Amino acid sequence: MRQNDTICAVSTPAGVGGIAVLRLSGSNARQLAEQCLQTPKGRPVILSNRNAKYACLMDGTALLDEVVATYFAAPHSYTGEDVVEISCHGSLYIQQRALQLFLDKGSRLAEAGEFTLRAFLNGRLDLSQAEAVADLIDSQSQSAHDLAVSQMRGGYAKELETLRQELIDLAALLELELDFSDEDVEFANRERLKEMLEDLYSKVKRLSDSFQTGNAVKNGIPVAIVGRPNAGKSTLLNALLNEDRAIVSDTPGTTRDTIEETMVIDGITFRFIDTAGLRQSSDEIEMLGFERSRKAAQKAKVILFLHDARVPFTDDTMGDLCDIIQDVNQKEKIIFIVNNKCDLVDSPSSQGIDISALTGDGIEKLKQSMVAAVKKRMSEQGDVLLTNIRHYEAMNKVLAALDEVRKGMAVNLTPDLLVIDMRDALYHLGTITGTVTSDEVLSSVFSRFCIGK
Amino acid sequence: MRQNDTICAVSTPAGVGGIAVLRLSGSNARQLAEQCLQTPKGRPVILSNRNAKYACLMDGTALLDEVVATYFAAPHSYTGEDVVEISCHGSLYIQQRALQLFLDKGSRLAEAGEFTLRAFLNGRLDLSQAEAVADLIDSQSQSAHDLAVSQMRGGYAKELETLRQELIDLAALLELELDFSDEDVEFANRERLKEMLEDLYSKVKRLSDSFQTGNAVKNGIPVAIVGRPNAGKSTLLNALLNEDRAIVSDTPGTTRDTIEETMVIDGITFRFIDTAGLRQSSDEIEMLGFERSRKAAQKAKVILFLHDARVPFTDDTMGDLCDIIQDVNQKEKIIFIVNNKCDLVDSPSSQGIDISALTGDGIEKLKQSMVAAVKKRMSEQGDVLLTNIRHYEAMNKVLAALDEVRKGMAVNLTPDLLVIDMRDALYHLGTITGTVTSDEVLSSVFSRFCIGK
Repeated sequence: MRQNDTICAVSTPAGVGGIAVLRLSGSNARQLAEQCLQTPKGRPVILSNRNAKYACLMDGTALLDEVVATYFAAPHSYTGEDVVEISCHGSLYIQQRALQLFLDKGSRLAEAGEFTLRAFLNGRLDLSQAEAVADLIDSQSQSAHDLAVSQMRGGYAKELETLRQELIDLAALLELELDFSDEDVEFANRERLKEMLEDLYSKVKRLSDSFQTGNAVKNGIPVAIVGRPNAGKSTLLNALLNEDRAIVSDTPGTTRDTIEETMVIDGITFRFIDTAGLRQSSDEIEMLGFERSRKAAQKAKVILFLHDARVPFTDDTMGDLCDIIQDVNQKEKIIFIVNNKCDLVDSPSSQGIDISALTGDGIEKLKQSMVAAVKKRMSEQGDVLLTNIRHYEAMNKVLAALDEVRKGMAVNLTPDLLVIDMRDALYHLGTITGTVTSDEVLSSVFSRFCIGK
Repeated sequence: MRQNDTICAVSTPAGVGGIAVLRLSGSNARQLAEQCLQTPKGRPVILSNRNAKYACLMDGTALLDEVVATYFAAPHSYTGEDVVEISCHGSLYIQQRALQLFLDKGSRLAEAGEFTLRAFLNGRLDLSQAEAVADLIDSQSQSAHDLAVSQMRGGYAKELETLRQELIDLAALLELELDFSDEDVEFANRERLKEMLEDLYSKVKRLSDSFQTGNAVKNGIPVAIVGRPNAGKSTLLNALLNEDRAIVSDTPGTTRDTIEETMVIDGITFRFIDTAGLRQSSDEIEMLGFERSRKAAQKAKVILFLHDARVPFTDDTMGDLCDIIQDVNQKEKIIFIVNNKCDLVDSPSSQGIDISALTGDGIEKLKQSMVAAVKKRMSEQGDVLLTNIRHYEAMNKVLAALDEVRKGMAVNLTPDLLVIDMRDALYHLGTITGTVTSDEVLSSVFSRFCIGK
């Protein structure tokens, strides 16, 4: 994969537009481009670093297009190699012919993500930053965008590097003991070691836990609207979505108990999950519906417990609420009690948010409360959120290895055995930023990219 | 329309890609861009002419994206104004946010074609060249692309300029007469004038006539396959199209008697027109079918007259052929006699091209003959082909005006009356390159463009 051959692709979106950009990267990029370019008067074009040159793109003696070519000299280019970007007219015919031209001259069609792969292989960015580039291109809301930008800029990588350094320090102390183990000397203070380990463990745990939030922010915060039949769940869903119909998206082919609609509010994507009404019942089918609500609530990050304001908030209502949250980790969930149909009662409710899904009263307040609660939760999780399932899995492996070390220490295991688990933890941490990597990991990471990036 | 305000648009195709390019043009373009850019260390970015600068695109204090910004100083830019191109990551979210950012800072969303309109208004290209840019972006075959490139590069404009100069010379001679008309002196040699006029007239006529070919090349050469029922017309159509199924396109919603399929052969787009079988018949419905064939043949540039090789080429066959071409300007058409089912006969036919639509024999030869004939016809029309219906109409008005001059000369009209028609001819010629123009013409020309060009 570390080939230095020259690759080529159209980097702009597929289709017809005013202009399109072709990108060449590799040791021959500049030479290839210069071969196909000439000045309007037919003289050779000499590309110089970062200088945008107007030129004629020639296929032999035939003019293919008038273009602007910009050369980015290695190593200060996106890929770290020589790069030439050719901005041509955006007809499909020209894009295809220009690409064919550079392939004929000896370049190779870039695979999906190969430009960014080369940037990684040349040390221009680490693996987690490369993944952030793909996230950035995919991001559709401000919060997902901000997470990707922060990861791409390396704030995340810095946090991981700090962790890694602490792991190395700890391992070094253990290995020191190991070196002198023949002499039966215990150099390191075991209590001090345990403290360092606990500190590390809790940091890794926090990162691993942040995945729930990070992933929700990236893919949309799941919101379940639960409540008794006729509490007004569908009306509320419509009221929530109606506000900004333009950015509502239908997810086709979804069944009634999975995600129905997504919507961006204040830069945060919410995914509203439809649920069946709640009711204690001996009817089997109704109980299945209840089970479905429960599952939706389990998957949700935010639960809107909808209650008819005309009905007193009795023990029965409380029972419903408890049923819903009983097998759910409450700390993880953001739960709102929402009193609907408040236009039909005289006095405000004693608890929760009063709304009328029908008239729209209180809907804006509900939205703002949801946004505020999610933002608060995000800030509680610290600056760095895990958003990538690959990282989440690696982090859990680090956690498991550290747990082994912890257990080993508790039973006064010899350092040579502790060191094995420490190295394991270091290895898994390294897979996140790509300090240690395999072709398999790389190809799975970069296959997510589009061609031309 | 000659406003100097700064316009902004995404110039790359709509959608998600590796990168997207935002374009700013106008007197404030550079200042606007610099306001939103900073170095990774937070210092101001100073853009210099044609220098591609890596920078952070900031929305206030928030990092929106890492971009490459290139400044093209007036007047040596596409529009002739200050232009900044910002190459960002190709997420829809970023494209939209970046665009919003520059709109908020005081730029205006560019209208369709407005960048090219400004290039025209600033004298960077004439109107026919501007139209060629739109054709270039639309072109889907080599011949359409080559026509657009040649028009964009000004070969066409040069031919028109020569014509214009000759018209002006002629008008000047007439006006000279006019100036001295009180003295009743006939300065110019009328015979010489007539010669010049005839020469001009035939040049304009040639250009006007070239529209048939130019338009066919741009939109596809219409080919009618005609012949008796069971001559194998549908099989031939399939055989012609099967070769390169990938670039066959179905035109949906077409009825049986209009265009059915288009196909690119050797860089030339052919549009195959389905026709009903030919047969002299008293049956009314059959006669309607025949009428349809005749109309298709009239619209076609190339006629493939399909004949069953097993049937002698009799007077009857000749009659069919004559029927088809009788009310058609033969000089304009390229007619091939194609003998089908030659796999079923022993000796080759005395005339035409022998094929077997079933086995594929001779199909390649037929295609090459079609391509060769069309290319020959194109070269006969000279270097410059009229491809634009607006130009065609203007050219016909020039022709009509010159005809008036011609008629006037024939009856020895006084120069003051001749000059009126000469000026009329000059006026209409001027509308093609935009020497004379109106807002109405401009808006109809530039509304064809996509946003961002």
